[in-house]
Amino acid sequence: MGKSPKQGRPKARLPNGFRDIETEEIQGLKAMLRELERVYETYGFEPLETPFLEYTDALGKFLPDQDRPNEGVFSIKDEDEQWLSLRYDLTAPLARYVAEHYEALAKPFRSYRSGWVFRNEKPGPGRFRQFMQFDADTVGTASPAADAEVCMMAADALEALGIERGKYVIKFNSRKYAEGFQERLKIPQINRLTWYRSIDKPSRLGEKGVGELLGPGRKDESGDFTPGAGLSPDQIRESLTFATAKIFEAKFVQGSAVGEAGMADLAEMRRLFDAAGYGEDRVRFDSEVVRGLDYYTGAVFEAELTFESHDETGQLVRFGSVGGGGRYDDLVARFRGEAVPATGFSMGVSRLYAALKHLGRAVNLGSLAPVVVLVMDRERVTHYQHLTSLLRAAGIRAEMYLGSGGMKAQMKYADRRGAPLVVIQGPDELERGIVQLKDLAAGAEMARQIDSREEWREAQPAQVAVPESELVAAVKAALEREAVSAGAAGGYDGG
Amino acid sequence: MGKSPKQGRPKARLPNGFRDIETEEIQGLKAMLRELERVYETYGFEPLETPFLEYTDALGKFLPDQDRPNEGVFSIKDEDEQWLSLRYDLTAPLARYVAEHYEALAKPFRSYRSGWVFRNEKPGPGRFRQFMQFDADTVGTASPAADAEVCMMAADALEALGIERGKYVIKFNSRKYAEGFQERLKIPQINRLTWYRSIDKPSRLGEKGVGELLGPGRKDESGDFTPGAGLSPDQIRESLTFATAKIFEAKFVQGSAVGEAGMADLAEMRRLFDAAGYGEDRVRFDSEVVRGLDYYTGAVFEAELTFESHDETGQLVRFGSVGGGGRYDDLVARFRGEAVPATGFSMGVSRLYAALKHLGRAVNLGSLAPVVVLVMDRERVTHYQHLTSLLRAAGIRAEMYLGSGGMKAQMKYADRRGAPLVVIQGPDELERGIVQLKDLAAGAEMARQIDSREEWREAQPAQVAVPESELVAAVKAALEREAVSAGAAGGYDGG
Repeated sequence: MGKSPKQGRPKARLPNGFRDIETEEIQGLKAMLRELERVYETYGFEPLETPFLEYTDALGKFLPDQDRPNEGVFSIKDEDEQWLSLRYDLTAPLARYVAEHYEALAKPFRSYRSGWVFRNEKPGPGRFRQFMQFDADTVGTASPAADAEVCMMAADALEALGIERGKYVIKFNSRKYAEGFQERLKIPQINRLTWYRSIDKPSRLGEKGVGELLGPGRKDESGDFTPGAGLSPDQIRESLTFATAKIFEAKFVQGSAVGEAGMADLAEMRRLFDAAGYGEDRVRFDSEVVRGLDYYTGAVFEAELTFESHDETGQLVRFGSVGGGGRYDDLVARFRGEAVPATGFSMGVSRLYAALKHLGRAVNLGSLAPVVVLVMDRERVTHYQHLTSLLRAAGIRAEMYLGSGGMKAQMKYADRRGAPLVVIQGPDELERGIVQLKDLAAGAEMARQIDSREEWREAQPAQVAVPESELVAAVKAALEREAVSAGAAGGYDGG
Repeated sequence: MGKSPKQGRPKARLPNGFRDIETEEIQGLKAMLRELERVYETYGFEPLETPFLEYTDALGKFLPDQDRPNEGVFSIKDEDEQWLSLRYDLTAPLARYVAEHYEALAKPFRSYRSGWVFRNEKPGPGRFRQFMQFDADTVGTASPAADAEVCMMAADALEALGIERGKYVIKFNSRKYAEGFQERLKIPQINRLTWYRSIDKPSRLGEKGVGELLGPGRKDESGDFTPGAGLSPDQIRESLTFATAKIFEAKFVQGSAVGEAGMADLAEMRRLFDAAGYGEDRVRFDSEVVRGLDYYTGAVFEAELTFESHDETGQLVRFGSVGGGGRYDDLVARFRGEAVPATGFSMGVSRLYAALKHLGRAVNLGSLAPVVVLVMDRERVTHYQHLTSLLRAAGIRAEMYLGSGGMKAQMKYADRRGAPLVVIQGPDELERGIVQLKDLAAGAEMARQIDSREEWREAQPAQVAVPESELVAAVKAALEREAVSAGAAGGYDGG
């Protein structure tokens, strides 16, 4: 490999829909995940990680014909001719884990996990084929208290990340409550998923648009036609009343057992929120939240950022939903044949991070750039290495310049790295037993104009000479001064 | 999905060669990675993450016939009929990144990353198909100082993790030096990889075994035959002298330009180690280190744990190599057609973690189990939720029991979770305005014998009553007492 690089050279490029992540985002994401972990642990959730590949059948991603996987997942046949798939969410692998270890687990089983998931779908702007989720799940209890808890936890998590009260809301609803309404209205089973996918859109499409989706279908601005649920005008009118009600009411589900059970769940959740001090400003019922996914069986919820603002170009920015979840009593049952009640919440890590950045609340740990020890004399590289090691031993990020460039190239390198300081010791300094510390933050502009050692000696911008024996102490002091002045200038906006 | 779980129920099982990771290991790994990151950042490396999937050709994993990927990697054809592969190491994706962004990068480019990699190979005991590596690389310099740095960094990293000086050694060598010797000995090009894969085994196979591998071939104890390099007796004798020499010497490479360059690199590295205070006890030349991989082009190194000990069953445990690396000047050239010197080091995270655990130096952050608030009266669940929220708001890990079990089941749950305390408030306590705090650590054994509320009232083992208004303060105090006594008992062995 690589022996004859001229022949059939591959092009260095990322696959479509994937991306690299660099220092600032890695640091910001890590800090954000740590904060989420802390909040989730306060709620009694413990970490659990599952592998990236699972048997396709265990993920429930075989197509109905049972001999090939769903195209939306990345799938591979292993050497035993079994299909494996990259996980497309963190819920299906958890269901596999719980089913596999069901007897041994203390129940209710409460766990959290963050991780990359993969979708083999056409990527779009801001839509990647690898993205991160952060999930928490409680398995083994049907109690509405378990649903209420994840909603409160989501609210706490957003506030812990620096999103102020009033800028977010956790919305909840119940699929049972909605199902009860469908029952009362005698909506045929076959139209119910379409009904769910219409009823969650009054804010977006208005009552007219939703009415079309519930009835004959709707043509959007681009001319695309979405088939409707085919309801009668009466059914549509009642559905719109249901979907735009600000409160849940017994009248909507009267006579439906499942609907009344859903109603009771919603009332219990509301009581729990109030008892724990989570008012309507943080957690509230919303009839539009029904979650399109087939597998939800009870309470459903969504975390929404409610603020609007403008980006640098003046464009309106609205982040909307940054997470959601609900009760999925059948996912573990797939394996076990008996119902295992479960509920969970999934945060969209990338969207949440984008929102934090926009709000100036993403943790920016600042530059990781090291102090750079210049190599002024190639013969004395061991001595520069020695100086570098002294700095590191004192816990100071430092490196000796490792390239082959001259003075100008070295200064340019230090500048591009964002080095706070460079350490300079040429023959003169050596003779006098000193080192020069140059503050790049202060002298960056001038540095770019310096071409030679001679010019340097004359200008010496933003630099101090210290005895070599005081190198470590002097560098420490200089870095502290810089940190203070960066702080004073508001350079740190950690959440 | 999941609607008719009885039909064709999938079996809940992990794919062969994959595993789940639970709380203690997740916490320990995280702490270990954080420490590695800190050390690497002290050396001026910054984090960079690449995606899990890359074009197979970019990873260099197409088979020579160029129309299908190497079987050792997990590969998938995407919707554009292009082959993607799961990364099998972290070096090939880095080479792609560097080649893609070459002009824009400050060079030398120093970055680190940890991440899961995947091998589509037969798994074995302790050998998984998904495992984690932690890499640091310097791209864009041919200086031996860059090689020396990663060796020193590996030494620092192991010590920072709690592996004492004397229990590890970083060994280094140079492929150029070895190649010079091969040249001097006139070993044909075609036999050189076999030569490398023989010459690294005197410690394992003895001189006789290596002599067989260098000559006609070797049959091992199981009867398997490994073809040899076919050298003459003279060549074998000289190779053995070379391979068992404790020092590098000019005489072995005399007259070979590449060998003399390698010799100079080794000498320069040794000078740098000495200048920085890394003596032979930490970093030393070892002629057996040649690294079997085809892509190394200069310095090569290996981090080895040198201690031996015994596990619980009396079996001898030797961890051996926990990482390694070297100079790979051709990997980026695959894309760019011009040589880009690079050097890197990769830690085997799982093996290193196993060694830390064995040494009692894995960070054990202790239990994450929450205080459990029991539900003594279902009608008052909102009040228990309120108490739970008070604890959480004070930063105490807490949960209300969410299952449907009675007193005994709740105590059993708290016990299995490892809860440090349970909070109990039945009708009597409510009337008196108090809560009972029960210390599970102290009362675990007795708890298992309690069947009813009545028995409980009589026994009340390891528990105290406090006014409800003092709940938070009392729980805090009790947890602090427990932490102190756990500390005194040596329960914490953090590295």
